[in-house]
Amino acid sequence: MSPSPASKLAELRERLAEINDLGRARALLAWDERTKMPPAGAETRAEQSATLARIRHERLISDELGRLIDAAGGETESLPYESDAASLVRVARRGWEKARRVPPDLRAEITRTSSLAEHAWVDARASSDFKAFLPHLERNVELRRRYAACFEGFDGFEHEFDPLLDDFEPGMRTAEVAAILGELRDGIRPLIAAAAESGETVDDACLRGSFSVEAQETLARDVVAGLPLQEGAWRLDSTIHPFAVAISPADLRITTRFDPDYIGTAVWSVIHEAGHAMYENGVPRELWRSPLASPSSLGFHESQSRLWENWVGRGRPYLGHLLPRLATLFPDRLGAVELDTVYRAANKIEPSLIRVEADQVTYNLHVILRFELELEIFNGATELSELPAAWNDRMQQYLGVAVPDDAHGVLQDVHWAGGNFGYFPTYSLGNVIAGQLWDRIMTELPDVEEGIGRGELAPLRDWLRENLHRHGNKFMPKELIQRVVGGPIDVAPYLRQLEQRVSEIYGT
Amino acid sequence: MSPSPASKLAELRERLAEINDLGRARALLAWDERTKMPPAGAETRAEQSATLARIRHERLISDELGRLIDAAGGETESLPYESDAASLVRVARRGWEKARRVPPDLRAEITRTSSLAEHAWVDARASSDFKAFLPHLERNVELRRRYAACFEGFDGFEHEFDPLLDDFEPGMRTAEVAAILGELRDGIRPLIAAAAESGETVDDACLRGSFSVEAQETLARDVVAGLPLQEGAWRLDSTIHPFAVAISPADLRITTRFDPDYIGTAVWSVIHEAGHAMYENGVPRELWRSPLASPSSLGFHESQSRLWENWVGRGRPYLGHLLPRLATLFPDRLGAVELDTVYRAANKIEPSLIRVEADQVTYNLHVILRFELELEIFNGATELSELPAAWNDRMQQYLGVAVPDDAHGVLQDVHWAGGNFGYFPTYSLGNVIAGQLWDRIMTELPDVEEGIGRGELAPLRDWLRENLHRHGNKFMPKELIQRVVGGPIDVAPYLRQLEQRVSEIYGT
Repeated sequence: MSPSPASKLAELRERLAEINDLGRARALLAWDERTKMPPAGAETRAEQSATLARIRHERLISDELGRLIDAAGGETESLPYESDAASLVRVARRGWEKARRVPPDLRAEITRTSSLAEHAWVDARASSDFKAFLPHLERNVELRRRYAACFEGFDGFEHEFDPLLDDFEPGMRTAEVAAILGELRDGIRPLIAAAAESGETVDDACLRGSFSVEAQETLARDVVAGLPLQEGAWRLDSTIHPFAVAISPADLRITTRFDPDYIGTAVWSVIHEAGHAMYENGVPRELWRSPLASPSSLGFHESQSRLWENWVGRGRPYLGHLLPRLATLFPDRLGAVELDTVYRAANKIEPSLIRVEADQVTYNLHVILRFELELEIFNGATELSELPAAWNDRMQQYLGVAVPDDAHGVLQDVHWAGGNFGYFPTYSLGNVIAGQLWDRIMTELPDVEEGIGRGELAPLRDWLRENLHRHGNKFMPKELIQRVVGGPIDVAPYLRQLEQRVSEIYGT
Repeated sequence: MSPSPASKLAELRERLAEINDLGRARALLAWDERTKMPPAGAETRAEQSATLARIRHERLISDELGRLIDAAGGETESLPYESDAASLVRVARRGWEKARRVPPDLRAEITRTSSLAEHAWVDARASSDFKAFLPHLERNVELRRRYAACFEGFDGFEHEFDPLLDDFEPGMRTAEVAAILGELRDGIRPLIAAAAESGETVDDACLRGSFSVEAQETLARDVVAGLPLQEGAWRLDSTIHPFAVAISPADLRITTRFDPDYIGTAVWSVIHEAGHAMYENGVPRELWRSPLASPSSLGFHESQSRLWENWVGRGRPYLGHLLPRLATLFPDRLGAVELDTVYRAANKIEPSLIRVEADQVTYNLHVILRFELELEIFNGATELSELPAAWNDRMQQYLGVAVPDDAHGVLQDVHWAGGNFGYFPTYSLGNVIAGQLWDRIMTELPDVEEGIGRGELAPLRDWLRENLHRHGNKFMPKELIQRVVGGPIDVAPYLRQLEQRVSEIYGT
């Protein structure tokens, strides 16, 4: 309202806050749809969600927002790069420029087509019928090629796949990710081989068999309550495919499912999702309701979930702390089990068919295989019709498993049905970044694991807040890793940690 | 997009659908806030909700919407009054004209002030301190006067209170409502006196005392499942102040609370809220996502909740059907109780202090007292500072009860704190309309109660759908009652029914 120069930044903040509110409201609609909505509500929910998305997008690409960004940019140009205000303008500008590149018609077609493809995928997976899914996949790839073509000359994009990757891992280039994941693959395959050849067998029977769902729910709630997540700022619900979402940094929705024949989900999947929630919860209040409030790098987000899941949750100190509770809740099954047995079970390595059920080591090969196939699809090296064969070959090559049918192979994940090429690699980037963080934490907080053994998890959370969470979404992943660990993304720490754990379990 | 004349109506429909989506999304945010939200989410939730309300309102009062309404009005002028298209234009136009009358600054001030007043009311009620609340009440009344003044010359408004009433009961005038409620008051007071003087006592001990909340939850779910509400289109959750809300006509959220010392809420409050839900659920698909989808007369809405609660739920046939289930769930408390005992307890009359705990007969006097005081506030006959005394006097006069403090008197309801003057009378209008409907139903479906005794409730629902629900929000209350029962609003049927029930219970 006021003509003073400082007001443009304030106006920009308010416009961005509204855009943020619309996005969060839509997130609540999605959470509700997956956890609470009566089934008959599905049809109108899709329309409600589409309306919020459309209005949000209209505002995001508006000329008015562009003018505000420019004006606020003038006001903030003398501020330090890492200041809240300069970061806000920078991040908003990049988002605005990216969003403006895509014609509304193409965006609408992508939304429509991927929605149809997801429905077709559900049926195709149920009947393991890749041919029925193929036309949808072809259409998705074609639309993604057109989408990528909108970004010619943007921010130094070189590879056709760069724009796709950038939506999930801003600023990361295809060549860099290919190099990182290639190194990871070459480091992990020998570990898996060594474990297999060790002659050592790991029995995870203690985690399998019948576990009352009611007691699992109590356990899951205890697990979250035992994590250093702000009290009164979270809830836990069941769903089919677990996820976590922040309706605000102080309104965190963790979801899980309970498998009556496996206790692992109620522990590690819950810790994983709570790890995401702790990241969102750690963003400082000054950044709330802005595009800086929610970290947009999926790799960094995944670094948090995987650090808590694998390096805390599957670690011996945490399991030692949890064991008495497990024994109380499941006296028949876990009343007399040794810590060593649980620890070994939690870290068993076994090549398998399904990514979401894979152990922490082989998991990466599932991801890398998908990323490699994505690149081959987009550079034309693999025809879509040959995708099942290519998938099955590589599963044999990397994991030594024979894929019985496409439902257990190329059709197992929803990502490609949704048109989300470039998403998969962020899972393994998360593992790699978690490795770098964990390394740093071991140096800076030498007693952290001792504390974890007593259930004292706040020091770890505080370190993560101070070094990572407080930055929110201010920085691109490559800037952020530099700030946090003082160097670029590096596979070595993660490989060393895996090697150590494998050697501990398998005596390799 | 197309320049054909018919397209303006389609365009209007789409614009109104978006406005509807925004309102429904906001309703979900509110439902979540009251049933699921972690407490720390409250602050950002208020902002998210305000953003959706603001965007919805901007669209509702936009010039563009006005032009579309005019253009669509031209296209539909030859269509019958009751056609979907003509009704859509008519209802949209009235809404647009009303919304445009209020300057945005005044609206914003009303929102801000009532929000502050609601917070102040919580504290004032807790400490029974009317003086602390008085300045907020004064501010609310002053703002509502300014609000009412915006409607000079609108739609034949005569009385200063007409515009306030119109927001809850469109087209109903203060003089009409005063006449209806005056007649109701004068009819009810002798009934209460007769019951008191009958010498007959009704013991409702069977409903009071300890009832396991878990079993109450089962009961409440059974009660809803036994009603003819579309399967897969509802859910039941607990909250502090029970309500029902339609996220869509096929996504109905019923809420209740469970009082460990009283079983009545889990039955009648649940049936009441489900009655609201059945109304929303009965709106035909052609009207979904439009302003015709949600009945805007609170009186008609309340007629449905009260018809199901009082004429079905407290009727002997329904209670006879429910009793075996009550006996199974609460064997110690209700295992051996007679139907007559439960029926009498469900219809006990006892003047009391708190509206929301009042029986179905005295309830009306609570409402009428509030409406009369509202009129006196707005015509200046009662000063706000004298409100507690006026309240207490009238409680003594109408119900013969002495008010011990303002927390149990004038401070008991949130409505005035929220600035919602004109809301209360719709509760009793609902009772009156329910009486007219029930009369009609008794004539047209003479076997309906016999069926209810066997748990067959669909014929009643079907009658209500065919005669009322299918109209959605097409008609003003006065038009609607004419269409449904062939005459104007009439207190007589309701008074006759009450008289009959009182006579049955109290032998008067």
